[in-house]
Amino acid sequence: MSATILNAGEKRLVLVSGRAHTELAVEVAKGLGIDLVPTTAYDFANGEIYARFGESVRGADAFVLQSHAAPINQWIMEQLLMVDALKRASAKTITVVAPFFGYARQDKKHRGREPISARLMCDLFLAAGADRLMSVDMHTAQIQGFFDGPVDHLWAMPILVDYVRTRVDTSQVTVVSPDAGRIRVAEQWAAKLGGGPLAFVHKSRDIRSPNRTVSNRVVGDVEGRSCVLVDDMIDTAGTISGAVRVVLDAGAKDVIVVATHGILSDPAVDRLSQCGAREVVITDTLPIPEERRFGSLTVLSIAPLIARAIREVFDDGSVTSLFDGQT
Amino acid sequence: MSATILNAGEKRLVLVSGRAHTELAVEVAKGLGIDLVPTTAYDFANGEIYARFGESVRGADAFVLQSHAAPINQWIMEQLLMVDALKRASAKTITVVAPFFGYARQDKKHRGREPISARLMCDLFLAAGADRLMSVDMHTAQIQGFFDGPVDHLWAMPILVDYVRTRVDTSQVTVVSPDAGRIRVAEQWAAKLGGGPLAFVHKSRDIRSPNRTVSNRVVGDVEGRSCVLVDDMIDTAGTISGAVRVVLDAGAKDVIVVATHGILSDPAVDRLSQCGAREVVITDTLPIPEERRFGSLTVLSIAPLIARAIREVFDDGSVTSLFDGQT
Amino acid sequence: MSATILNAGEKRLVLVSGRAHTELAVEVAKGLGIDLVPTTAYDFANGEIYARFGESVRGADAFVLQSHAAPINQWIMEQLLMVDALKRASAKTITVVAPFFGYARQDKKHRGREPISARLMCDLFLAAGADRLMSVDMHTAQIQGFFDGPVDHLWAMPILVDYVRTRVDTSQVTVVSPDAGRIRVAEQWAAKLGGGPLAFVHKSRDIRSPNRTVSNRVVGDVEGRSCVLVDDMIDTAGTISGAVRVVLDAGAKDVIVVATHGILSDPAVDRLSQCGAREVVITDTLPIPEERRFGSLTVLSIAPLIARAIREVFDDGSVTSLFDGQT
Amino acid sequence: MSATILNAGEKRLVLVSGRAHTELAVEVAKGLGIDLVPTTAYDFANGEIYARFGESVRGADAFVLQSHAAPINQWIMEQLLMVDALKRASAKTITVVAPFFGYARQDKKHRGREPISARLMCDLFLAAGADRLMSVDMHTAQIQGFFDGPVDHLWAMPILVDYVRTRVDTSQVTVVSPDAGRIRVAEQWAAKLGGGPLAFVHKSRDIRSPNRTVSNRVVGDVEGRSCVLVDDMIDTAGTISGAVRVVLDAGAKDVIVVATHGILSDPAVDRLSQCGAREVVITDTLPIPEERRFGSLTVLSIAPLIARAIREVFDDGSVTSLFDGQT
Amino acid sequence: MSATILNAGEKRLVLVSGRAHTELAVEVAKGLGIDLVPTTAYDFANGEIYARFGESVRGADAFVLQSHAAPINQWIMEQLLMVDALKRASAKTITVVAPFFGYARQDKKHRGREPISARLMCDLFLAAGADRLMSVDMHTAQIQGFFDGPVDHLWAMPILVDYVRTRVDTSQVTVVSPDAGRIRVAEQWAAKLGGGPLAFVHKSRDIRSPNRTVSNRVVGDVEGRSCVLVDDMIDTAGTISGAVRVVLDAGAKDVIVVATHGILSDPAVDRLSQCGAREVVITDTLPIPEERRFGSLTVLSIAPLIARAIREVFDDGSVTSLFDGQT
Amino acid sequence: MSATILNAGEKRLVLVSGRAHTELAVEVAKGLGIDLVPTTAYDFANGEIYARFGESVRGADAFVLQSHAAPINQWIMEQLLMVDALKRASAKTITVVAPFFGYARQDKKHRGREPISARLMCDLFLAAGADRLMSVDMHTAQIQGFFDGPVDHLWAMPILVDYVRTRVDTSQVTVVSPDAGRIRVAEQWAAKLGGGPLAFVHKSRDIRSPNRTVSNRVVGDVEGRSCVLVDDMIDTAGTISGAVRVVLDAGAKDVIVVATHGILSDPAVDRLSQCGAREVVITDTLPIPEERRFGSLTVLSIAPLIARAIREVFDDGSVTSLFDGQT
Repeated sequence: MSATILNAGEKRLVLVSGRAHTELAVEVAKGLGIDLVPTTAYDFANGEIYARFGESVRGADAFVLQSHAAPINQWIMEQLLMVDALKRASAKTITVVAPFFGYARQDKKHRGREPISARLMCDLFLAAGADRLMSVDMHTAQIQGFFDGPVDHLWAMPILVDYVRTRVDTSQVTVVSPDAGRIRVAEQWAAKLGGGPLAFVHKSRDIRSPNRTVSNRVVGDVEGRSCVLVDDMIDTAGTISGAVRVVLDAGAKDVIVVATHGILSDPAVDRLSQCGAREVVITDTLPIPEERRFGSLTVLSIAPLIARAIREVFDDGSVTSLFDGQT
Repeated sequence: MSATILNAGEKRLVLVSGRAHTELAVEVAKGLGIDLVPTTAYDFANGEIYARFGESVRGADAFVLQSHAAPINQWIMEQLLMVDALKRASAKTITVVAPFFGYARQDKKHRGREPISARLMCDLFLAAGADRLMSVDMHTAQIQGFFDGPVDHLWAMPILVDYVRTRVDTSQVTVVSPDAGRIRVAEQWAAKLGGGPLAFVHKSRDIRSPNRTVSNRVVGDVEGRSCVLVDDMIDTAGTISGAVRVVLDAGAKDVIVVATHGILSDPAVDRLSQCGAREVVITDTLPIPEERRFGSLTVLSIAPLIARAIREVFDDGSVTSLFDGQT
Repeated sequence: MSATILNAGEKRLVLVSGRAHTELAVEVAKGLGIDLVPTTAYDFANGEIYARFGESVRGADAFVLQSHAAPINQWIMEQLLMVDALKRASAKTITVVAPFFGYARQDKKHRGREPISARLMCDLFLAAGADRLMSVDMHTAQIQGFFDGPVDHLWAMPILVDYVRTRVDTSQVTVVSPDAGRIRVAEQWAAKLGGGPLAFVHKSRDIRSPNRTVSNRVVGDVEGRSCVLVDDMIDTAGTISGAVRVVLDAGAKDVIVVATHGILSDPAVDRLSQCGAREVVITDTLPIPEERRFGSLTVLSIAPLIARAIREVFDDGSVTSLFDGQT
Repeated sequence: MSATILNAGEKRLVLVSGRAHTELAVEVAKGLGIDLVPTTAYDFANGEIYARFGESVRGADAFVLQSHAAPINQWIMEQLLMVDALKRASAKTITVVAPFFGYARQDKKHRGREPISARLMCDLFLAAGADRLMSVDMHTAQIQGFFDGPVDHLWAMPILVDYVRTRVDTSQVTVVSPDAGRIRVAEQWAAKLGGGPLAFVHKSRDIRSPNRTVSNRVVGDVEGRSCVLVDDMIDTAGTISGAVRVVLDAGAKDVIVVATHGILSDPAVDRLSQCGAREVVITDTLPIPEERRFGSLTVLSIAPLIARAIREVFDDGSVTSLFDGQT
Repeated sequence: MSATILNAGEKRLVLVSGRAHTELAVEVAKGLGIDLVPTTAYDFANGEIYARFGESVRGADAFVLQSHAAPINQWIMEQLLMVDALKRASAKTITVVAPFFGYARQDKKHRGREPISARLMCDLFLAAGADRLMSVDMHTAQIQGFFDGPVDHLWAMPILVDYVRTRVDTSQVTVVSPDAGRIRVAEQWAAKLGGGPLAFVHKSRDIRSPNRTVSNRVVGDVEGRSCVLVDDMIDTAGTISGAVRVVLDAGAKDVIVVATHGILSDPAVDRLSQCGAREVVITDTLPIPEERRFGSLTVLSIAPLIARAIREVFDDGSVTSLFDGQT
Repeated sequence: MSATILNAGEKRLVLVSGRAHTELAVEVAKGLGIDLVPTTAYDFANGEIYARFGESVRGADAFVLQSHAAPINQWIMEQLLMVDALKRASAKTITVVAPFFGYARQDKKHRGREPISARLMCDLFLAAGADRLMSVDMHTAQIQGFFDGPVDHLWAMPILVDYVRTRVDTSQVTVVSPDAGRIRVAEQWAAKLGGGPLAFVHKSRDIRSPNRTVSNRVVGDVEGRSCVLVDDMIDTAGTISGAVRVVLDAGAKDVIVVATHGILSDPAVDRLSQCGAREVVITDTLPIPEERRFGSLTVLSIAPLIARAIREVFDDGSVTSLFDGQT
């Protein structure tokens, strides 16, 4: 008799999902060829969340998917509770998958005595027991540095660019940034779409009064061009719809609006459907309920990208390789 | 010239409040003889919270008061964000004051693959930067051990007992626990109210279906007695109102219901106002909006207790001394 | 040539034991079909403990078993030293197996300026390098929340219930709690034994003078019944032997005392053998030396349960499943 | 006799300095009206650094100033060693003052398998024992979120703007960003200098070959204007001197280059003195040795700002207030 | 009304003591001019320790004194529990004062799969909440580096040297190390006693069989000399008494044995009283019960040194200064 | 469909190297039968280091080799950056391999207000993400206790002893320690070389003026003997070359100098080549450039030992076994 039991060290991948965006979770699971772990989750009368997994996750590489849709604090808390439950249930590793990562816009102190909320979210997930984060197009790349562990930062750009290429004559395109702070991204888009001209809308945003912005004038060559207005997210759409109008007023032939995250808080749908844009293209990192889908809205599926990334992580492959030749 | 600047090391106390229960915060501030720190807090369109303090808190002993009322996850998150802001604004110490501490009922794993949510809350506050917790009548005293630091656990019992003594003939009182798990507390009440008999309601609760409970029969002597039914919190009031009926059916003369925390989730108001209790006594650790105040409801103020405890903490006095001769 | 060496990732289980209860460790090892890791452990002249493992534990899932028997501080320290040695010897995971977990009764602050000793024990094991705790029937389930990691909480109840069923006519049984704080457990026992009546002994315990308690009267129906008095542990047996007498005085037919942990500090053996109980049933989570075994004492083996639980943990199975249909 | 010794709780401020930029440290000390703590620091033969403070720092609020000049890794390590020495010598709080914070440009992963070096630096200072960071114009504001504690982020802009206002006719000024990523800062400058037009130089930088950049054309209105080219730091000056030429080629009347940090790595001095800029304005956050001072270079003193900020921190005042009306 | 309460920030020193060596604690308190904090501490029947402080320690600089005498694991655990209680009672800082620090001899791994017990002790005190350690003559100075915080390392040498100077003609003295590993300390002694010759006893110690050592021959000049044999601690006195005999056999005139810590495990008293040493000099860092005091034993008081060091720490003075001119 | 993906849990070993001593890294890789991971590493103009790995390391057991040669702070920082990059690239475990571990001589506080630099280095590697350290002959074995995790401490002694045995008549050998603090090591050497006599050089070193030492006289029997002078490292060679002379002056037949680490700071080469030693034997834990290799210098290869140790770690074997029969 020996002092050791040996055992072939199999690895197990499991995917659990919160309640914020189950359609996406189901699609990702399908892409992985598995079912979601059966999960009980509901609210107590006073709003406290209860969550429990119906199958053993012991020793598994667990991925817990929740997109930070509204009511955002509830869904973040549910994901934290699920991470705690996975930790106490002896999951081997826990990866938080947040296709849209909440509070990412609060990534620095604009003034004294503010939180750095995006860092706090990272700290909370770490405290709950997360080993790794995965997200799509976080507001600033620096947020990767807020988490003390690996962050898999996925880019929706390849998916979006591929689609936009089928919708425009790239020789006629001007890429437009709605904002002085996002011109770098517009530069990347311009390069992907053939190296055409670049423009941006000069506006000022009052930090203390969010969602209210003042657009003004377009800088750069848009007259007679097909304009592609790119941003990372569309919240109330004030900025972007204002930018569409400024660009059209400046003589653009037409405008396509492209963004990864469709938050679409009121009155985004009204603004977008009336701003004059020929098409609004987003992905489904956030749930887009039927009543928010208007005629010119196109929603691309993000699930295949997330499924491939999860698979690479599990197989110790390279997430970077998913974007080869893309940057 | 020397290599040192000396400075009288004054201590500063500041009190900040989230938006969950500002009436209470104002009362506590009044009890302390100060104003609340002017604070900006609102929700962005997608529900993300923004918070900022209007005055320097650098070097201060900061107390951040938020009661975990509904929508509970939002208010917990707001308090976490405020703790982060205080930490980054160089507050010297940060005390989380949560008169009602959320998720306290989820203090253990009933079954496999559950979170221990009360521990998670403690971990989240620690991760955000809290040094100390203060709360009133947490669901189980063991939660003190969930936080890695000092916990000031206040008891509302003296306030409640003093009031109840004015409402009953203590020689005619039987203290009744609505639940086998709370008989210890009923024992303490019985001792305070003169050492009369003790009873409890034997019921079963299905953990997986919260807020639905099955009451059955009273064990102990209640016939012809004035019964005081004691619990720590009233949520949907299913248990407690069922217990009132069981006790009355068993021949009690009348019943007073007493609890520290009035969560009063629907349909608590209906149940309580119709269950036959002569009076329902709670404190205002949670906000009790006008529309939930019914005829037989008495709400006692918890603010003086919290103010005195904060003052003791700040003055390096003894919080324990507030309860001298009480236990 | 490549930049990688590949290796089949075998898992290894090893079991090491301190000196507190080697009989149990040997039984557990037998249940697992392995030998204990050869270990050197002794005391230096001044009482400092020395420990060393005789075989490599590198990369292994190590389980370190020590029951917290007397001299309890010595055995806890030995287990801490062994955890440190395992950590520095590169064990992959370290599970502390403490069938009886010391200091569990000090799980909250009864008064100001006390430690929360059960939490401290959890912190010490974490600091030494433990990844996971396993224990049997900890004094309160909340202790699971004291450790920042998975806790496998085993229940001896199925073993004890199965045995008691063979010793009583369940239709004649009343389950009795020796204490108002343990009625919940008595309720579970009553349900398992066929749903008969429930009773408890009303007594007061002076926290400041441990081991001295004042029993008084039984509440509930025990006359002419076979009573099963249940508790989690028997220390000096003051409470439980007093309860036996109260129950017999109240007309019980006979009494069986059941508890998981037999601490049996003096004068427990005298009290138990003379209190009138028909039988005293415990498990061997703690060593029961020959001189403490009296005629009416039955000691059930806990080793099979611990061995099965260790095996489930190692195989990434479900410890919860060991108790299926039990709760 | 009592169980307590009381003591007036005086606070003590001490300032220690590494060897990287002692002129600045002396100026800051002068601004505070104190001497630097006498310090021994030298290199052993193999390059290991030795450091020791000549006076007690026990209980003091210690500020340890080191600018991350070349040889940058040596000076960062010296500052880390000094933080460790302060921690072990019982300083009450330790503030790392790094007027230029090294590795700030590596604030995100551009590609897979890179470090996030700016986050690592924050982690190293935290591990050594730092409680707080103070720096001037860190490359991106998000770096504040990399440190788990308060960060006092000072802005040189008021100092630079005040000087530039004396050197140009603000009605004739166009602010130019050398880079698409810095237009936000240029917007702030434009606002401060009277709201004139804005321009930027469209260039591409190859991340994998640092210090080599490809400038191209100016976007925006510079013809006949006095241009102010603003950046946070000047390293080899390739980008900025190229931008000067592009702007002049585009018909600018003249160009003033402004930056906070003068790293001035070779061949910065040659490039700057020959690029055609009328004046190059920097601060002395980094040492500017005599041989690197050329005719058109103006070096403004940063010491008064740092001294005032340290004083505010020590007095629990508001660092934010130093910039009132500035943002 | 303002948002701030101001308070003169007084500092408070309190001294608490475990039960291991209360005589020393009383002497130290006397040296400080205070009483010990009234403390309740006893053992439960199963050996679990209970501890509670009788006065508020909130906001105080608390020093908790316990010498690690036998039963050593019990007294270390008691000190850990007291640290936890101080932390939860909101002491501002907690200094562990362990005049003799247990497990210090296990400061490295001699062979694989051993603990580094001295490091573990430091980790345990840190986990419990200690901010700072104070000890006298730890076995190796490197143990200072085991604790993540300030360590005040006191030297008994000045006290011992002063006494020995009164007992010998320093011109006739040879300092002898009982061990090749302690020659450095003997060098320091030789320097203090006038720079006379140095010798050491060449012996081998079997790590695996502690307390059994094999002395052999003296190297260096001892013939006709008054020899001072110096060590840090005397445990079973096997080494030191053997060394006395070797030195006497080699022609020494007489021998004085000097050590800081008198552990005096059996059969130390027999060995020391019979080995031929003229005098054995130790301090009372450990309790020396009456029955272990033999004719040639001199016990010097360490309390004044500890009291002065505590006072320096509290007053933010310099502990180093206590040894000025000594090293 | 199931909720799990299974995967054979292969382990992967990768070896990455910094730029300090690539020859050694290549030799170690060769010993392991693999290539180094292709790595980009260079300095920016201001000295900031950039590093990136060219292949995926996800899920791998990564060993990152860097010897702490001059410029030592640069190479330590590079290794820290590589650890951070490995952590963020999801390496499963990270082992820091530092054949010569920098700052090891600063392993304690000699005086107040010094750092404990060796502990700081351990803390920095831990903060960066290292799981384990591997090094050869660290200055004091206690440094193992500075790192909170496994430390594989390799001994070059077997390699050095085997070589020396071929160079001397062991019956004629006296082992000599250059220093009172290293006699223990000399004792081990003496035992290995046949148990001959032992000697040491009595000298004093002024801590405050490193690298300047004062040798004086040899204690022990060296006349007519072949002396082997052993030390752990040779820095400027002042001590060792002085010792050679003292030993020769005392009548030694000849002297061989042996040390593990050849730092060889100026003027070590001059001193060693002129001191009269017959041979100087070191290993290549540090790079020995051609211009520092003098006639009597022998450099033994350490790569096979490191490769074997890495292999044992990866295979969960026993590093201790590499030294079986050696201690």
